[in-house]
Amino acid sequence: MRMRNKPWAMDFLKTNDDLVDTDSAYALKIGDFFNTAQPLHIEVGTGMGTFITELARRNPHVNYAGIELDKNILIRVVEKVRALDLKNVKLLLLDANMLESYFNPQEVERVYLNFSDPWPKHRHEKRRLTYHTFLSQYRSILSENGEVHFKTDNRNLFEYSLVSLNQFGMTFHEVDLNLHENEPEDNIRTEYEGKFSAKGNLIYRLKASF
Amino acid sequence: MRMRNKPWAMDFLKTNDDLVDTDSAYALKIGDFFNTAQPLHIEVGTGMGTFITELARRNPHVNYAGIELDKNILIRVVEKVRALDLKNVKLLLLDANMLESYFNPQEVERVYLNFSDPWPKHRHEKRRLTYHTFLSQYRSILSENGEVHFKTDNRNLFEYSLVSLNQFGMTFHEVDLNLHENEPEDNIRTEYEGKFSAKGNLIYRLKASF
Repeated sequence: MRMRNKPWAMDFLKTNDDLVDTDSAYALKIGDFFNTAQPLHIEVGTGMGTFITELARRNPHVNYAGIELDKNILIRVVEKVRALDLKNVKLLLLDANMLESYFNPQEVERVYLNFSDPWPKHRHEKRRLTYHTFLSQYRSILSENGEVHFKTDNRNLFEYSLVSLNQFGMTFHEVDLNLHENEPEDNIRTEYEGKFSAKGNLIYRLKASF
Repeated sequence: MRMRNKPWAMDFLKTNDDLVDTDSAYALKIGDFFNTAQPLHIEVGTGMGTFITELARRNPHVNYAGIELDKNILIRVVEKVRALDLKNVKLLLLDANMLESYFNPQEVERVYLNFSDPWPKHRHEKRRLTYHTFLSQYRSILSENGEVHFKTDNRNLFEYSLVSLNQFGMTFHEVDLNLHENEPEDNIRTEYEGKFSAKGNLIYRLKASF
């Protein structure tokens, strides 16, 4: 998703530096960023933040770090976290290929990828969040039984990801090729998920570990 | 698929013993069964035989062994092979859990599974042709770069199989979640494939090796 550029976005994020790290202040000491020491889950690519904020609201005993590269998008997540007064969400303005520099080895118990940019052109394969260089990052920071939970409505990206994760040696725990047919109670729909599903798109989900 | 029992089926198969092995005469000497020594591909569960006979017609330089458990079905395949005068197809009235007793190690270059019975009840999991005991059979008889090609329109069976093959340590080469959207020229539709696709069912395909 591309948002209109907001010249004031960075200023806004900096004035919320109790919630948003914009300059690696918490690199490798992410624990200090949160009020309470408890399990840490991350979402790589928060989009507008509906998913991570609702997840955090339902699970107060988990800390959530939202990773987003686009400052114009991240301000919308800040607004949501503020409005809900969530204490267990922190946000990082960060490229996903920097995860290893930010989190300690095995510090994270779960990585969520939701409706990641499919980068359909072959020459952009390296940008897909299920490309092996990103998988390598997730492997480093995930705990021993940590899992990657990946949702998308993009068939080509899902096909690609099934092969990519398998060839990386990951172990599949669950594959769902129509998540909304018997939608699990604990499924939290992202902004796009509701819209795309209503248009008749299938929603795919994969749970896997290293 | 269940066919009406035909009391004369076994007699019919026995009178075609140049084409059908009904009593393990060719166990572990399957090469002797064929006229020409050339690569060997097998289909486990031939159904009515549309797939294997068309495949054999298009690829005269490959030998095909069709495995089928149900004698009432197998007679239909015999009729097709006879009608097309195919020299590179042989048929085995055999349970798939007997493959290791029939083929030598690494003798087979490809295993086709098409629209296998989904056995949807959990207590019947062991009967699914992608259950680990069957995978173990395929692994024994497949050559080093041999592949399993699996097609189905049954979503639950495909989801199950993705997890089962992955957890068995198999390497995925291709996953297609809507094979007919850009149907490959070399795809051969089974009887069911055409019918189910026309009803709007998605056709899934997976190619993998050990």
